[in-house]
Amino acid sequence: MHAYLDNSATTKVAPEVVEIMNKVFLEDYGNPSSLHKMGFEAEKYVNEAIDTFSKILKCNKKNIVFTSGGTESNNTAIIGTALFKESRGKHIITTEIEHPAVSEPVSFLEKRGWEIDRLSVNSEGLVDPEELKEKLRPDTVLVSIMHVNNEIGAVEPIEELGNIIKDKAPECFFHVDDIQGFGKLKMDIKRSNIDFLSASAHKIHGPKGVGLLFVSDRASHIPPMMMGGGQQSGMRSGTVNVPGIAGFAEAVKCLYENIDGSFDKIKDLRDFFTGELLKIPDTRINGGENVSPYIVSLSVKGVRSEVLLHALEDKGVYVSAGSACSSHKKHGSVTLKAIGFTDKEAEETVRFSFSCHTTKEELEYALECLNEIVPGLRRFKRR
Amino acid sequence: MHAYLDNSATTKVAPEVVEIMNKVFLEDYGNPSSLHKMGFEAEKYVNEAIDTFSKILKCNKKNIVFTSGGTESNNTAIIGTALFKESRGKHIITTEIEHPAVSEPVSFLEKRGWEIDRLSVNSEGLVDPEELKEKLRPDTVLVSIMHVNNEIGAVEPIEELGNIIKDKAPECFFHVDDIQGFGKLKMDIKRSNIDFLSASAHKIHGPKGVGLLFVSDRASHIPPMMMGGGQQSGMRSGTVNVPGIAGFAEAVKCLYENIDGSFDKIKDLRDFFTGELLKIPDTRINGGENVSPYIVSLSVKGVRSEVLLHALEDKGVYVSAGSACSSHKKHGSVTLKAIGFTDKEAEETVRFSFSCHTTKEELEYALECLNEIVPGLRRFKRR
Repeated sequence: MHAYLDNSATTKVAPEVVEIMNKVFLEDYGNPSSLHKMGFEAEKYVNEAIDTFSKILKCNKKNIVFTSGGTESNNTAIIGTALFKESRGKHIITTEIEHPAVSEPVSFLEKRGWEIDRLSVNSEGLVDPEELKEKLRPDTVLVSIMHVNNEIGAVEPIEELGNIIKDKAPECFFHVDDIQGFGKLKMDIKRSNIDFLSASAHKIHGPKGVGLLFVSDRASHIPPMMMGGGQQSGMRSGTVNVPGIAGFAEAVKCLYENIDGSFDKIKDLRDFFTGELLKIPDTRINGGENVSPYIVSLSVKGVRSEVLLHALEDKGVYVSAGSACSSHKKHGSVTLKAIGFTDKEAEETVRFSFSCHTTKEELEYALECLNEIVPGLRRFKRR
Repeated sequence: MHAYLDNSATTKVAPEVVEIMNKVFLEDYGNPSSLHKMGFEAEKYVNEAIDTFSKILKCNKKNIVFTSGGTESNNTAIIGTALFKESRGKHIITTEIEHPAVSEPVSFLEKRGWEIDRLSVNSEGLVDPEELKEKLRPDTVLVSIMHVNNEIGAVEPIEELGNIIKDKAPECFFHVDDIQGFGKLKMDIKRSNIDFLSASAHKIHGPKGVGLLFVSDRASHIPPMMMGGGQQSGMRSGTVNVPGIAGFAEAVKCLYENIDGSFDKIKDLRDFFTGELLKIPDTRINGGENVSPYIVSLSVKGVRSEVLLHALEDKGVYVSAGSACSSHKKHGSVTLKAIGFTDKEAEETVRFSFSCHTTKEELEYALECLNEIVPGLRRFKRR
């Protein structure tokens, strides 16, 4: 038995996704920029994918831009807006708990003269809409706030935040990093007044190396990050990654067929799982009510997360200590610090993350392993 | 029978490449940033790929950076150098015949105050090393010159150019767009004093969406284009595209096992092919002696390339009118204009491009089709 509970880091590619990619690799391998039939056949996959995504996001086809992944999507929205609007204003608002793919480009701009306000979060990881209202200024050109936090699963009130921006600073662009929410939690782009939305394929059983950026009509004039052959209406040059895009579309189609059912199933599983976790003495589930059911952040007092992670992996249970994307780095978790954790508390926190394919059996097995391991690790520590 | 002769646009993915990618998609799908065994297993593919590429390029492992493709590699080298060296100088030298993935980021910098010199080329598409010598200045921070031209196959004298830079402007970085040469024509990075070399997987039977940038030790301090989780030693953030990288490495391993043999085989095929093409009245092979055997640029007097392309595709022969990457655009070919073609001459030019798997049978079939089609198209036109 084993249980892969690190789906927020990455997921197994779905068999139907592999199937369509193999067809593109071996049969329909043309370059969509080619004028002949092989190019035309390849372009069809891309057009079908655009169709799929524009229906899901309820937007126009021209609002869909494919990228190499969530990091490129985030960088494009942030750096592109900064370049496009630098003559209008150089003030950006973001939060204390963004993923580095947002916080790093923002810091880059800060070093080059942009002024940055980072909204704080409460103990549940949620920003205060009132704080956004106070911080918005006439020269604020971009607000960048994540939908679902990658470490504790907090779900930010995107619609409310979007409406505040619309009321108070209607010219300001709104970027939402939806890499942990896309395909799992629904999102109404129009009602939330979103200008940019970032998504990634490999978090939802698609391939690595493909992402998406929704770009609103008014934001479509930002300069591209990738300059070259003018593919994708000039918004993202570079040979279009046909197999990756076809795979991404296939993955999202499978998910959206049953997005509500999966959400409910995973919510039930999470309730069961967290209930059982709390029976282990001195444990705590982090985050509050507004949380994605796909993420469980657990603190186990007296047990270092890295030790627990390795003890679990010996039994075939795969979890994360902090967010995988930054787990190779030595500095501590950004989100846990922002919600008030001490370094010691943060070091005792692990993340379980689910996909729509996660089963109760996997969670029962993980619980069995935890119940077996945790007391031993605590005893060992006391000696 | 059919003949795919558009391999400079993109290639069919090799079966052994698909095989290793499928293994990663379905079994070893972890995120290399994860601390557990699944992450470790995924990282092994990346380390093996780095090993493969560093041996082929005869460089250190830390000099290898994986990107989303040739366009990102080129953009990274150019924009990164500009940002890194802007306080030292804002002069860049490139050529008139670069691919848009080089010429566009260069033009972007020009609009923002950088001074650009574009070296001219002779009728064979070759730059004059003396002109480079004249144009180099103390404030030249980057020279960007392609190895193999994508439209006519001209092979630039990279080693000679690199040595001129080393002698005359030793601080200046040298970027080589090797997207049409990598895996086909050998290149000595050290002897050519190269700081950046761009390559792409999908041009050599690897997958789309993966590329490589060789970065010399002294150039490794340029700021990254993708900012985020700090993957690849901070040089390129974003979840590492493990299947793509593993596929790219597999593709290049297959090629390098017999790179000289393939070169000789393709050279013979090209000689045969061009000899037969010239038997068709009023045709011309463009480019001179220093040409990649993998590319044949043919002008057919009185026949518009687009018409010929579509007549050939009806018979299952796939070629390109201009370079595929810009064939959707309406402006004419940059290279053909630079070597002195009139618009009309450029419009009568098609490109055949080969891969190591191209066979004599394919070329014979293409010739048969051309001999059948061309006289008819000319007659049709005269009426």
